[in-house]
Amino acid sequence: MNLFHDFVEKIAHSSYIVGGEATCAVIDPRRDVDVYIREARARGLKITHILQTHLHADFISGHMDLAARTGARIYVPKTAKCAFPHVPLSEGDSFMIEHLKLDYLDTPGHTPEHGSYVVTDTDRGRDPVGVFCGDTLFVGDVGRPDLFPDMAEKLAGKLFDSLHGKLLKLPAFCEVYPAHGAGSLCGRSMSAKQRSTIGYEKKYNPALRIRNKAEFIRSLTTNMPPAPDHFSRCSDINRRGPVRVDKLPDLLEINPADFIKKISGRDAVVLDVRNYDAFGGQHIPKAWNIGLAGNFPTFAGWLVPFKKPVYLVADGYAQAVEAVTWCRRVGADTVAGYLVGGMSAWAAAGYPTSSVPQVSAETLREMVERRADFVLLDIRAPLEFEEGHIPGAVNMAVQDIRNRWKELPRSADIVVLCSSGNRSSVAASMLKQRGFDGVMNSAGGLKGYRALGAPLTKK
Amino acid sequence: MNLFHDFVEKIAHSSYIVGGEATCAVIDPRRDVDVYIREARARGLKITHILQTHLHADFISGHMDLAARTGARIYVPKTAKCAFPHVPLSEGDSFMIEHLKLDYLDTPGHTPEHGSYVVTDTDRGRDPVGVFCGDTLFVGDVGRPDLFPDMAEKLAGKLFDSLHGKLLKLPAFCEVYPAHGAGSLCGRSMSAKQRSTIGYEKKYNPALRIRNKAEFIRSLTTNMPPAPDHFSRCSDINRRGPVRVDKLPDLLEINPADFIKKISGRDAVVLDVRNYDAFGGQHIPKAWNIGLAGNFPTFAGWLVPFKKPVYLVADGYAQAVEAVTWCRRVGADTVAGYLVGGMSAWAAAGYPTSSVPQVSAETLREMVERRADFVLLDIRAPLEFEEGHIPGAVNMAVQDIRNRWKELPRSADIVVLCSSGNRSSVAASMLKQRGFDGVMNSAGGLKGYRALGAPLTKK
Amino acid sequence: MNLFHDFVEKIAHSSYIVGGEATCAVIDPRRDVDVYIREARARGLKITHILQTHLHADFISGHMDLAARTGARIYVPKTAKCAFPHVPLSEGDSFMIEHLKLDYLDTPGHTPEHGSYVVTDTDRGRDPVGVFCGDTLFVGDVGRPDLFPDMAEKLAGKLFDSLHGKLLKLPAFCEVYPAHGAGSLCGRSMSAKQRSTIGYEKKYNPALRIRNKAEFIRSLTTNMPPAPDHFSRCSDINRRGPVRVDKLPDLLEINPADFIKKISGRDAVVLDVRNYDAFGGQHIPKAWNIGLAGNFPTFAGWLVPFKKPVYLVADGYAQAVEAVTWCRRVGADTVAGYLVGGMSAWAAAGYPTSSVPQVSAETLREMVERRADFVLLDIRAPLEFEEGHIPGAVNMAVQDIRNRWKELPRSADIVVLCSSGNRSSVAASMLKQRGFDGVMNSAGGLKGYRALGAPLTKK
Amino acid sequence: MNLFHDFVEKIAHSSYIVGGEATCAVIDPRRDVDVYIREARARGLKITHILQTHLHADFISGHMDLAARTGARIYVPKTAKCAFPHVPLSEGDSFMIEHLKLDYLDTPGHTPEHGSYVVTDTDRGRDPVGVFCGDTLFVGDVGRPDLFPDMAEKLAGKLFDSLHGKLLKLPAFCEVYPAHGAGSLCGRSMSAKQRSTIGYEKKYNPALRIRNKAEFIRSLTTNMPPAPDHFSRCSDINRRGPVRVDKLPDLLEINPADFIKKISGRDAVVLDVRNYDAFGGQHIPKAWNIGLAGNFPTFAGWLVPFKKPVYLVADGYAQAVEAVTWCRRVGADTVAGYLVGGMSAWAAAGYPTSSVPQVSAETLREMVERRADFVLLDIRAPLEFEEGHIPGAVNMAVQDIRNRWKELPRSADIVVLCSSGNRSSVAASMLKQRGFDGVMNSAGGLKGYRALGAPLTKK
Repeated sequence: MNLFHDFVEKIAHSSYIVGGEATCAVIDPRRDVDVYIREARARGLKITHILQTHLHADFISGHMDLAARTGARIYVPKTAKCAFPHVPLSEGDSFMIEHLKLDYLDTPGHTPEHGSYVVTDTDRGRDPVGVFCGDTLFVGDVGRPDLFPDMAEKLAGKLFDSLHGKLLKLPAFCEVYPAHGAGSLCGRSMSAKQRSTIGYEKKYNPALRIRNKAEFIRSLTTNMPPAPDHFSRCSDINRRGPVRVDKLPDLLEINPADFIKKISGRDAVVLDVRNYDAFGGQHIPKAWNIGLAGNFPTFAGWLVPFKKPVYLVADGYAQAVEAVTWCRRVGADTVAGYLVGGMSAWAAAGYPTSSVPQVSAETLREMVERRADFVLLDIRAPLEFEEGHIPGAVNMAVQDIRNRWKELPRSADIVVLCSSGNRSSVAASMLKQRGFDGVMNSAGGLKGYRALGAPLTKK
Repeated sequence: MNLFHDFVEKIAHSSYIVGGEATCAVIDPRRDVDVYIREARARGLKITHILQTHLHADFISGHMDLAARTGARIYVPKTAKCAFPHVPLSEGDSFMIEHLKLDYLDTPGHTPEHGSYVVTDTDRGRDPVGVFCGDTLFVGDVGRPDLFPDMAEKLAGKLFDSLHGKLLKLPAFCEVYPAHGAGSLCGRSMSAKQRSTIGYEKKYNPALRIRNKAEFIRSLTTNMPPAPDHFSRCSDINRRGPVRVDKLPDLLEINPADFIKKISGRDAVVLDVRNYDAFGGQHIPKAWNIGLAGNFPTFAGWLVPFKKPVYLVADGYAQAVEAVTWCRRVGADTVAGYLVGGMSAWAAAGYPTSSVPQVSAETLREMVERRADFVLLDIRAPLEFEEGHIPGAVNMAVQDIRNRWKELPRSADIVVLCSSGNRSSVAASMLKQRGFDGVMNSAGGLKGYRALGAPLTKK
Repeated sequence: MNLFHDFVEKIAHSSYIVGGEATCAVIDPRRDVDVYIREARARGLKITHILQTHLHADFISGHMDLAARTGARIYVPKTAKCAFPHVPLSEGDSFMIEHLKLDYLDTPGHTPEHGSYVVTDTDRGRDPVGVFCGDTLFVGDVGRPDLFPDMAEKLAGKLFDSLHGKLLKLPAFCEVYPAHGAGSLCGRSMSAKQRSTIGYEKKYNPALRIRNKAEFIRSLTTNMPPAPDHFSRCSDINRRGPVRVDKLPDLLEINPADFIKKISGRDAVVLDVRNYDAFGGQHIPKAWNIGLAGNFPTFAGWLVPFKKPVYLVADGYAQAVEAVTWCRRVGADTVAGYLVGGMSAWAAAGYPTSSVPQVSAETLREMVERRADFVLLDIRAPLEFEEGHIPGAVNMAVQDIRNRWKELPRSADIVVLCSSGNRSSVAASMLKQRGFDGVMNSAGGLKGYRALGAPLTKK
Repeated sequence: MNLFHDFVEKIAHSSYIVGGEATCAVIDPRRDVDVYIREARARGLKITHILQTHLHADFISGHMDLAARTGARIYVPKTAKCAFPHVPLSEGDSFMIEHLKLDYLDTPGHTPEHGSYVVTDTDRGRDPVGVFCGDTLFVGDVGRPDLFPDMAEKLAGKLFDSLHGKLLKLPAFCEVYPAHGAGSLCGRSMSAKQRSTIGYEKKYNPALRIRNKAEFIRSLTTNMPPAPDHFSRCSDINRRGPVRVDKLPDLLEINPADFIKKISGRDAVVLDVRNYDAFGGQHIPKAWNIGLAGNFPTFAGWLVPFKKPVYLVADGYAQAVEAVTWCRRVGADTVAGYLVGGMSAWAAAGYPTSSVPQVSAETLREMVERRADFVLLDIRAPLEFEEGHIPGAVNMAVQDIRNRWKELPRSADIVVLCSSGNRSSVAASMLKQRGFDGVMNSAGGLKGYRALGAPLTKK
């Protein structure tokens, strides 16, 4: 059995090639599919099957690109009701790739249409070698069932059954190949380790140790981290079949004089992907700051209104291309171009700029200690906030700023804070767009503050 | 737990990075260590430990290079008695890398000084997550204990104890991270899958199903494939500590006029790394042909007298560099240069050439069927030969040509055959060096012959 | 003035970027236009003009690709009557690129529609800095006027007037930026130096030293090297506007079993791009051998019937891609796929092969000296043949084999010879296609033979 | 004649390969010599000669590296009195590289020991094809003779003689291959075009149109731009022979906790190579800001006290490596390491930071118009300042801050300005080091200000 594991950081997405000596399947491919084609070629394998465990909510899958470029067939759970040509699978279906037997299981829970592929190497034995379980079972966690808010309890119940009734019935030695690792929002607390075994998870996975179904449901529908809004958008695109990447237009290079014209329309979005300190130094007024150094795909996919044309500000061409790749991975195909010469060219053209002062941990502590007159806005998720925050801080999760910004005093000095300084700069840019001129960013965030040994509170 | 797996094809060598959030260990590194430094940098990890399971016999390890470039300490089983600065390990020793606990076990058998590292993620549970078991346990096989011919039985017995007394006592769900995969000569019949679990191997690994120790010993000391001679050389270099790669001289570019001078000395070796058909078309008289397309490192390391200066013939600079890299991986540091312009430049300089006619499967069948007057020399290993060969073929393993060539009739037409045509071209080049002018190569080898449906025999 | 010079080897094609500080023109672009886009980006230039000196006969130009990807306008001599949107230019037309003035001159001769662009840096002076003269004037030569056989004398006369009446009237210090260098078939004897000056060429260019028009015409219409047949095809494609490269299909990977089916149709072409010695070792019967190491684009473009689907045999994927790129540069867009695994996989599938014995210089001399019974077929151009050949050799230029092969004795031993062994292997493959089974190739060719000091003759 | 031209941006350094069919010379190589080795290999040339026109003052030359790696001999003007093995050249010396004749001329002026190499292609004619004239003659300018302040007049006189007595006596059509282009400080006003001809320069080069020697001397010794101090250091290193790049230590990766220890010594230098706006956002107190986007090598080489160990702050590993390469090119071999994780990691460790507010052109105009209470410090060179500046601005060239900073009021608000914002950020960082806390940087600089149409003055 030939096994290749690809991992995309930030969205923490695992995909796999599994095959025999001449042919292979790709499971849950990423949208930029060159990596599978190159790897299959290097191993002398022809890609004949594309297997989807479910309709991914957090990224656009490369099934259409891969099918077009290789001629492989796409296999999807029947319940996904996909709009493109595919082989629909139902419980009990199985197929062979050379000496490998793949058994399809319905494993709903994370989503209603979710399935898993159990692989048995018939050359070696009758027991399965591993299971491609998508977002059903993770290392140290299980898939969250609350992405469809009105179905959360029902899905949590199905997840319990899929896990205890199917996956955990596999042998202890069976390997677990999930679709996500630590950092993904598809679970709560995954391990950094990317793969595991049924036996180890059964014994040590906290979610699996809850053997009472009602308690399991309660646990997975209470105190969940927020679910990004773009998740439903991605699912839908994946169901219909995404546009092929090689059909999308080239990234335009736009000089400052043209750029200022294009962004003056009310419908344009300026997306600045530089680090928070460079954005703080100078940026185009009203720009979003979602730095590539942070979890760009999650926050860009979640917050940026991608139906509008998007214009990028980056540190050079290579960084702009990197941003476009990430945007495409989360279903944002409207990036129209980038500012040639970056902010230096913009400033040298005499165009207006704005800035966000960066507050160091030391300065912030000093402000807190002398009870300076400012709002300390902690924009982390409520669960993070509850685990420890700076006394006096106000909590408003970054995504909630879109609806709750009016609660904030517009003329006050506001220091925005997250764990590191990246996410808070997203929030700072959103507040600046809404006319909050006294916004500052806590560089280093709670990590820096904590490093000083300054006291935190849970209340 | 942060885990990275590197695999070097041909010698089928697996090495690993395992670490926490800031520091990590590298287990059994390859000699060209950039891959670990780059990967650790990308993951934000500092390499602090270099762990050796044993003195590798089939490749030169990168422990000295990696230690020099990162400042990490080298850990080796005490019984290896290494000559360089290191931390010697004994049964029961353990150490932490952040929240990872590494327990050292003596697991002799493949070699006398062999050890394993059991890793436990103390953040998750008390049971081990996996074991870096070097060449003790493979996927579908166990390490061969016969590399030291006079110790084979004794080592096989120790291997039985290491396996049944130690490794198989680990939980069924514990993962197995061996140092080799299919293709390596350190085992007999490994699977293409590169990692496994204790439970799966316990149930399906043929070697582990022999529960009688005497029978186990007999099985692993009888009918073993031959062991390359360079194995003891590599072990010894690894014990003393290999020369750092960045201290080795650059590859010289040598034009034909200088090349012919350099190779005229009796001590020079000409090593032609092109495909067998290009070698067959024309080559420098007395050259070795070990094509990069085949298992170059094994046969180069095994057969070529690398104490002498080696001069390469390749298809261009990039291929020559690839050959040098492989040579260094198997401990051959005497490659002095390569022929600029390749065989085309050589021929255009009017220098003498030789050739080896290539015999297609069809032609060979026709020769066999009409009982043409020729020797069909099958140079595969005796075990391969016994599994099926062309009626009338004579068996002499490629490495045995060095001693047994006098058994062959020098003036006869000889068609040399292996499974594909690569290894037989090595043999053909060795016979040409010894004055056998009627040598031909079976292109496609037994694979091509079998594809024609022509009958084979086991007798 | 910003100047960038790109050179494509083998077809020896020079193209240029010339521009100011923000905008630029590309002159005579190659078909794979990434190089211009990347270079312009690095220099901060926007490509606004695409200038064609004429309808190139020896390569497909990238004007359509570049226009589509940059939005630049295409400028062409009016007399070219191009079918795509463009700015037609007539004598006396001029335009500015920032401070650079470009004056268009009609300079017919190499082709009827040929023009040149004289560039003046108005920031520095009134005199021109250089001239983009296409194939009118080369370093050490002039453009050949005989590509349209029935117009040769007329065009030669026009060329004389374009040179002496226009280009040579430019200042001595004016630089010369031609579209070709040594190796191109658009001239006879160009220098290795790629650029020059009007004054130097006026004084030392042999063609320019003929001041008598009639003598000039005679010189350029007599004893010219043959003109490849694909030249008219390329001109025509360039006039109509070539298909965009990014619209062409991907290169298919075809395994041996599918490959043998596809090439069994009478209309399929097998094109083997490996070195002559590998082809000699083994190849697919009826395959063409045009090695990438030689002048692949010229001979592939010239000889291969590219209207038929073409199937490649190469040493791996990278080499196949290289071959496709070259094919596209000479207007061959019908390459359908390549043989995965190459000849090794083919042989291992048991399929039939053929071979061409390689004859070394030493062996050839020995055959010549003992007057062995064979035909020595020198397939170089008649002019080359006349400058010196092996006594007894028969001359038939490689392209003439298509019509004259019946003059050769089919059952004879034939040693085919060129200067190096590459071109003769093309001829050998063509003879094998026609049933000449006794064909051998002179490896090293006349270069190797001459290196032995063996006597040549001019008679 | 085979000619390759390499150009290093920022220091605007041209170097060349010139050769025949098998051997070649490299003229004035850069320190990172891989480019020559790769290019010579691609052209089938062996590097046999390394030619120095003079002791370069603005960069470290690669003669020692190239000699060590190729075995080529180094040729230098005898008057340079170099300390390493070389062939010393005197007026009238000449040598052949195949059919190329190289005539050495003493052409002092830019420096006392300067020479030029006139190249004649004896296959084509008796006149020279071109001249490698180093820093004697540039496109649109001549080499400045004022780098040795007390010899300026004497050298200017020699330069006049070298130009009018030697170089301009070459034929009009002879090509000019200088060692620098626009952007270099070795001249005043070079053209963007990198090569030219004797005739064109004779007619249009402003410096050459001064035919009176006394006037020429006056012109070249009056109102010259300042000469960086590191120029004498580079000359001296080049005379002694620079350390080989591959003998220099690897770049260390240093985490924040170690970094803060290392830079706390009084002798350490922190060099921040990020853009001015990122530096403005946050930086390590006392750090230098010399952004890679500007003319990093010139200002780093000039201003940074490189005898001390240097610690880099960059946006990632690749940018740190780029900075090290530039440092080495200007003779700074003491870069010890870089901050892993960059400023984000630093801030997250809670360590102190500083910032520099960025002032947009609009804001600056508003401050100027309402006569706000601040110092507008224009740190461009006096000659630039005199050509136009903002009314009320104070001029102090960036390099003069080292001596003249006490002239500035320490408690004032100071806006530092240059043409773009890069150089002024260097100055801002220098003022911050000296305790000026009210420093701001004019982002976009005079370019941005001018774009607003705001008035400038020359007085």
